[in-house]
Amino acid sequence: MPIEKASSNIWLTEYLSEGEIYQYLISKILLQEQSDYQNICIVELENKSKALILNNVLQSSTADSHMYYEPFIHVPFIHNQNPENILILGAGDGSSAREALKWKCVKKIKIVEIDKAVITSCMAHIPEMSKGCFKNSKVKIDYLDARIFIKQDEQKYDVIIYDLNLKTLEKSNLLGRIDKEFLLDCQSLLKKNGYMCLEIGEVPYQRNELFLSKLNVFKSVFRSLKIFSSWVPSRCKNISFVLLSKDKIIETIPIYDVNLLLEKQLLDEPSFLNARTYIGLMNPAIFIQDYEK
Amino acid sequence: MPIEKASSNIWLTEYLSEGEIYQYLISKILLQEQSDYQNICIVELENKSKALILNNVLQSSTADSHMYYEPFIHVPFIHNQNPENILILGAGDGSSAREALKWKCVKKIKIVEIDKAVITSCMAHIPEMSKGCFKNSKVKIDYLDARIFIKQDEQKYDVIIYDLNLKTLEKSNLLGRIDKEFLLDCQSLLKKNGYMCLEIGEVPYQRNELFLSKLNVFKSVFRSLKIFSSWVPSRCKNISFVLLSKDKIIETIPIYDVNLLLEKQLLDEPSFLNARTYIGLMNPAIFIQDYEK
Repeated sequence: MPIEKASSNIWLTEYLSEGEIYQYLISKILLQEQSDYQNICIVELENKSKALILNNVLQSSTADSHMYYEPFIHVPFIHNQNPENILILGAGDGSSAREALKWKCVKKIKIVEIDKAVITSCMAHIPEMSKGCFKNSKVKIDYLDARIFIKQDEQKYDVIIYDLNLKTLEKSNLLGRIDKEFLLDCQSLLKKNGYMCLEIGEVPYQRNELFLSKLNVFKSVFRSLKIFSSWVPSRCKNISFVLLSKDKIIETIPIYDVNLLLEKQLLDEPSFLNARTYIGLMNPAIFIQDYEK
Repeated sequence: MPIEKASSNIWLTEYLSEGEIYQYLISKILLQEQSDYQNICIVELENKSKALILNNVLQSSTADSHMYYEPFIHVPFIHNQNPENILILGAGDGSSAREALKWKCVKKIKIVEIDKAVITSCMAHIPEMSKGCFKNSKVKIDYLDARIFIKQDEQKYDVIIYDLNLKTLEKSNLLGRIDKEFLLDCQSLLKKNGYMCLEIGEVPYQRNELFLSKLNVFKSVFRSLKIFSSWVPSRCKNISFVLLSKDKIIETIPIYDVNLLLEKQLLDEPSFLNARTYIGLMNPAIFIQDYEK
């Protein structure tokens, strides 16, 4: 495949595993800076989309942000049915708050972000991600470490979205690792019928003891757990999320009810997930069903 | 991610698009030969799996062959409910026939393969793919061009599996391109309630006129079409398949019926797809639902 017309020859390289490399062509660097916490880079890719890169790991792209954030936000919201008070740990480019604001019932969104530079950089260079959400009157931002925030917060939430990329956390000095103590603190902030949701990367398709032990930490704190996955082209991965609840999670909410709920709640047409897609996400491959047990 | 312990430094490189490269580490080359039709390569990958590579394009790997072939074969079989007579165009490494033979009701499988060298090489170097299927008494192999075969064949089939990789076809001199004439010939070989199924690569997530025009060729010959997708790690892609029928395809067969059918029919436990997974596959993202219309 010739790249005769390519506008640059800058390839960003990521190791997907020890034996796999994924490289993508960057046509233009829009911002490159070192904040107090991490390396922030905003680029234009060869397909004309823009992407946020933190510590050399691509976080999201304007081309397929909806393929990541619609499942991530709407699945826990569908299960809660009437989410009013939302906590988002990690502001990122604003995509999670943007999706949350599509729900009529949402009254308050608290964003906790340690690195103000991420928000200001994204607002300046990729405002199409946040779509003004950081300025929305329902949204309040606390510039604080998530781990400290959850120790001192006294509010209760319907949904907690943990939107910090684990791979980036490993590479940086940020706190906020997910351990039992952290999960217990989060769980204590959930209202009745509350849900916590977070990304868990790509689920290993062969039985993997390390991955199982990580899931067991979730299972030791929350009564039930569901895994759903979405193919995210710019990450070159089938990204999985875990939905956590103190109560038993209904395996699949009937399609008719989901249809009614989305029609009633959504202020904006979804572009990735409707009631049928939700049913699809809730019914994964056998190896994922086995991990849920 | 350090690769200090890597057993080799041979990286096979594929362009996923003009701005994306996927490379994987090959620890050992088991076979490399030029047949009358194509370049055949069988390798061991860094994750210890073995893979078949035709004309420099990875076709399948022993690690995740089930993630590709269980959906590919079992979905059309589930829709037919009682597939007895099967036509497979392109033998590959034998995975498609292996999956088809798991169904009790299957009486005859005809494989059409132009390149005998693919079969003999795979039988010698990756027999764990075919699991003896090429020697099974239900299986007959015709060494012939698929396009010529379907012009002269007089049998009728319950399911036709088109298992020739389109990307490989483009790179080789093989005939068998999918055009209206070819599809009409295939359609005429289908019994009542018959299905044809083939891979269509990765479905573009943004509206794509070229892709739509390809789908329209299918729609001009078959009455209905369904698209389902499976993440295949060794291909580093979310691979989609298209299910074609002269009749109206039932949107989703009820989970209870699929459960009963699989219990009655399967000689071997599936490792990727059960009734729940089938429901998941039938309910894709909105952009795929739109292509199906």
